[in-house]
Order: sequence, then C-alpha cells, then structure tokens
Amino acid sequence: MVALVGISGSLRKASHNRALLRAVGETLPAGAALEILDGALDLPIFNSDLADPASVVDLKARIGAADGVVFAVPEYNYSIPGGLKNALDWLSRPPPLSPLRGKPVALVGAASGMSGTIRAQGHLRAMLVYSDTPCLNQPEVLIPRAHERFDAEGRLTDASTRALLERFGAAFVAFVARYRNES
Amino acid sequence: MVALVGISGSLRKASHNRALLRAVGETLPAGAALEILDGALDLPIFNSDLADPASVVDLKARIGAADGVVFAVPEYNYSIPGGLKNALDWLSRPPPLSPLRGKPVALVGAASGMSGTIRAQGHLRAMLVYSDTPCLNQPEVLIPRAHERFDAEGRLTDASTRALLERFGAAFVAFVARYRNES
Amino acid sequence: MVALVGISGSLRKASHNRALLRAVGETLPAGAALEILDGALDLPIFNSDLADPASVVDLKARIGAADGVVFAVPEYNYSIPGGLKNALDWLSRPPPLSPLRGKPVALVGAASGMSGTIRAQGHLRAMLVYSDTPCLNQPEVLIPRAHERFDAEGRLTDASTRALLERFGAAFVAFVARYRNES
Amino acid sequence: MVALVGISGSLRKASHNRALLRAVGETLPAGAALEILDGALDLPIFNSDLADPASVVDLKARIGAADGVVFAVPEYNYSIPGGLKNALDWLSRPPPLSPLRGKPVALVGAASGMSGTIRAQGHLRAMLVYSDTPCLNQPEVLIPRAHERFDAEGRLTDASTRALLERFGAAFVAFVARYRNES
Repeated sequence: MVALVGISGSLRKASHNRALLRAVGETLPAGAALEILDGALDLPIFNSDLADPASVVDLKARIGAADGVVFAVPEYNYSIPGGLKNALDWLSRPPPLSPLRGKPVALVGAASGMSGTIRAQGHLRAMLVYSDTPCLNQPEVLIPRAHERFDAEGRLTDASTRALLERFGAAFVAFVARYRNES
Repeated sequence: MVALVGISGSLRKASHNRALLRAVGETLPAGAALEILDGALDLPIFNSDLADPASVVDLKARIGAADGVVFAVPEYNYSIPGGLKNALDWLSRPPPLSPLRGKPVALVGAASGMSGTIRAQGHLRAMLVYSDTPCLNQPEVLIPRAHERFDAEGRLTDASTRALLERFGAAFVAFVARYRNES
Repeated sequence: MVALVGISGSLRKASHNRALLRAVGETLPAGAALEILDGALDLPIFNSDLADPASVVDLKARIGAADGVVFAVPEYNYSIPGGLKNALDWLSRPPPLSPLRGKPVALVGAASGMSGTIRAQGHLRAMLVYSDTPCLNQPEVLIPRAHERFDAEGRLTDASTRALLERFGAAFVAFVARYRNES
Repeated sequence: MVALVGISGSLRKASHNRALLRAVGETLPAGAALEILDGALDLPIFNSDLADPASVVDLKARIGAADGVVFAVPEYNYSIPGGLKNALDWLSRPPPLSPLRGKPVALVGAASGMSGTIRAQGHLRAMLVYSDTPCLNQPEVLIPRAHERFDAEGRLTDASTRALLERFGAAFVAFVARYRNES
C-alpha cells in the first residue's frame, strides 16, 4: 500500500482546492490511498523562539508516517497562502529532523481564473528545495476556471480533468516508489 | 514630512530583521520618519469566508495612512515567513480597496548566512505585482552574516551597512515622492 | 510625444508576439508611438571578454533614445527566450552605463496555451531588478490561446484583448511620464 | 561507470564556472567521470521555424548518451546567461524527444559577489520543470567570492569548497542511479 496524505491551502468551506484533493484521492491507482489532513493549517504563527505546540508535533508525525504528500495550492497574491507557508515553516524545523526531508511531494491547484495557480506552484517548488523535498515535475495539475469543473457539492464533473488526475496519480505513485527504495 | 511604516516578518525577540528596521529608521534623510508596526503579524489565518477582524481593519488603516511601507524580510524555506504572507493575504483583499494598491514599498532583509534573504525578497517582489504595489528596485538591502553586524542589543555596528541604509533611505524617500504626486 | 520602442522575443515569421507588439502600437493613446526594433536579437552570444559589436552599440543607442520599452515575451521552457535574454546580457553591461537603467519598461506576452506567458514574464521582471529598470505592474498582458485572437495575417481580432491593450497603453504612457520627470 | 557531461554557461576564457566544472570532475566518486562539452553554447539563436542545425543534433546526441548533466551557471541579470538559455531552447524541442526529458541534472555556480548565483540557479530549476528533468535539490553549490577560491590557473584552492564538491558529487551519482533504474 502507498499511503498518501493531502493538505489543502484553503480554509474556505466551498474550496475548490479541497474538492480537488478529494478528486485526487478518487483517481489514484489501486494500492494507493489519500487521507486529507483537515486542520493542518490550524497552527499559531511560527516563531523559532517557541517549542513545537502539540498541533505541530501531531502534523509532523502524520507527515512522517506517510509515503508522500499532495499539496493543493490556491493562489493568493501570486504565491501560496500564508497559512500553508506557515505550516511549512513549522514542518521544516529543525532541518535535519524535518519530516519533509526526502519525502516525495506533488502539487495540484485550482483557481477561477486562467492561470490555474501557476505562480503559487512555482513558489512552492522553490521552497521545497530548502527542505530537500523531491517534488514531482510532470504532469502539472493547474486547473483554470475551477467553477466550471466542479459542481455545487464540490464533485469533479469534467472528464478531461479526471483524465489528467489519473495520469497525475499514476505518475506520483511511481515517483514515491522511486524514492521509497532508498530513504 | 514623509511618514513611513515598517513591518518585520519575524516574531523572534532577538530578531535581526526588527533591528534592521530600527536602523532603517535611524538612517532616513531629514523630513522622513519610520514607525514600526509591532503586532502586524498577529492575525488569524486568512479565510475569505470571514469578514476582516478588528486587527486587520486597524492594520489596513495604518498602512492606508502611511506614505510608504518598509518590509523587513527574514527568509524561511527560501521565501518570506508564513506570518508575513498571511498579513499580505488579508491586506490585499478586496483588490480594489487594498491599502497596498499604489502604495510605495521597499524591502530589506538580514540573515545569518551568505545570501541575505535574496530568495525571500524575490518572492515578495513577485507578490507585490498582484496588488499593483510599486517596489523600489535598488539599492537592494541584503544583509548576510547579520550576527556580525549587530551587537547583542540589536544596534547596528557595521559602517558599510549603515552607509548602504543611508543610500537606501534616500532612494526610497525619492521613490515615495515620485508616486505621491499622482496617487 | 512619447517615443516607445518594442522588442519581440520571437524570431518566428508568424509570431503572435510580434503581432501583439503591432497591436500595442495601434492602441496607444494619442501622442505616443511605438517603433518595433526588428533584428534586436540578432547578436552574438554574450561574452564579457569582447567589446560591444556594432549591432549592440546600435541597439543600446536606440533604447537610450526611447522614452520606454515594450518587451513582447514568448515563453520557452517556462522562461524568456534565450535570444531575448542574450540581448539583455549585452544591454545591461556595464551596469552604470546601461540604457536599461531607469528606463521605463512594460511586458506583454501571447501563447497558444492557457498561461499566457505568466512564468516568462515573472522571470523577466526579476531580471529587471538587476538593471534598476522600473517595470509596469498592472494591467498585465497575458494572452492565452493566441491563435484564437489573431487572424492569419497577425491582425488582432478579439475585442476584449483590444480593450485590455488600450488600458495597458494608457497605463504605460502614464508610467513613462512619472519616470521621465526625474531621469 | 557513470558518464556525466558538463556545460558551462560562460564563454569567458578565465571563467570561474568552467574552473568549477573541472573541479567537479576531479572530486567525483570512483566510477564516475565528467566530460566538459566545450562549444555547447555555440549555436544560432533558437527559431522554431528552423530545423536543428548540425551543432544542435550533435549536442542532443551527447546529452542523450550521458547518464547525467552538470550545468555550471554564472549569473547575468539575476538569471542564467542568454547563451545557456538558448541551448536549452534548442534541447527541449520537440518536448517528447528532448534528451533532457527524465535526464538527471545538477547545478553548480560561482560568482565574485556574495550570492553565489542563487537567483540564476532558481530560474534554471524552474525551467527544468518544463522539460520534466529531475534536478538534484541538495547540496546546493553556490560559490561566493570565487576569485578567492581559485588561483590564476583556475585551480580550486579552497578546502571547504572541495569538501562541498565531494558531497555534491556523491549525492549526484546516487541521484543518477535512482533515475537510471527506471528510464
């Protein structure tokens, strides 16, 4: 079994990115499963003067136990949400003990405009170099006009997006396998 | 008078970036002053389902009233701190009413390594394009080995850094003047 | 009169970016004109051991004489074309004498996909910080599905794109005016 | 045997980046060798209207035959040199046949200033996502004050840099092995 966890960068109730994460879970190949970590962003603002609060200890343990992580990335101000960045700030310290170190990661993102969170994903990729976190290159999952692809209950209704997610899931599971052998 | 406000991205007590912001204030040309907005990052995690809390309303008013903003940017995970990004997420919404729109901004940053927050400042510059915020290009204030340039009380002790800050302050005040005429 | 020059990053005969540059010229406000510098990329590969060849001397003079520059930016490998970067390498040396120093610049870009050259324009903005070149923030001109917006002769046929270019031209001419007063 | 090729982004005769590439070759673990591809940038400016010239056909073949590629990246205008970008533009087309697709790559860079080509390497990493090219995360080889670390003949004289290159070489050879098994 390949056990993945998913973290959405949005706290909105009707978030397309949380819906996208669910759709990722539904389109994984057999033998892989995704658990969404709701509440992962519910952390105090990072301050390196402080010890890890219990919420951070728990989040680190869940990521440490997973075979890989999928981040669903809304785009705010042409970058990732502050809440998601704040979670990374906690997770990456201290660097030698970070559960992100060597952990395979992949990114997806949905937005109502045309760009599909391109800029936010680019920033997140750059951040993951710091924590020595391998990140899947392709296929990129950049979903524009998200409101046309999910229904009011957040179910994916677009066949081409579903096909993309199937290719993405297969590629990420293969990527995880490549890194699992040596970690 | 040119009234500037400063926001430090670090919550650490002995933060070099807060110390750098103080040094910026001390090296401004005559006729300009900088007020540091302590507590600017003390905001809930942004959620567009929510109305602005009082802390955000207050921060927006202070930035709206200022002639320009100096951000002191530590580098976490090769980008700006999540707490600072979270403040930007609140400040930038809704875009037409954001106090960052057209507001002249400049960046400074200090770090203990060699890079002097290069990557973080690069990300912040990209974010400010979204909010249509003019950002001073040069001189860049990228302070490496910060622990060698400030004493234990956070006072700037390095003459070349002081000279750089004087050039920076003069350039930013001229930049603010250029934008004030038309806003 | 506001005298602008335009440089296209593509050498393709049927380039949408050259067509876009022509459309920019046609939608400028009264009192402004754009001359396209064909052949601007026709330079040897930059080598700082060499003195400027005649083609570089000429290009520097044309940019130095202009009030502002519009770059039309295709996206190759998620960045600007090597030929355009090579022209910047020549133009930016030596830094104190570069015609890009303080020269107002704006970016436009067209592509057949959905992203409209977002990543390439982001890279170019970062490069222009080096040469201390002010770059218009908004409106961004990111034209997706360019083949649906230009006809076979490269004429702009899309009304919403034309309206965007009119807003862009007005904003850039105002930006040039702001910088011309002090340079 | 692990057969690597190296490409320097600088054409300067006394280039520190070519010297760095030589030092990479000298510090590889047993069983690995690096051949520097001089002349790799000596290509016409990319134009997708044209068929590959012989120089491009040759460069593609050499990269296709290698187990991995090391790019030595000077920083011009806060990005990679135009000549290196131009080589990537040729190498990446058409995407399904690019020798960069799935080819393990690592970056090194040297500069006379403090930043050690941080920005250029960040841009190159972003470009390699397009061509689906896996790129080693850590250790990053960012050599500041290069003139203090190489002698007049371009020989590496700094012990800490040599130790970094040894760790880099070992990490890259392991990275190549991880990808070779499945390509």
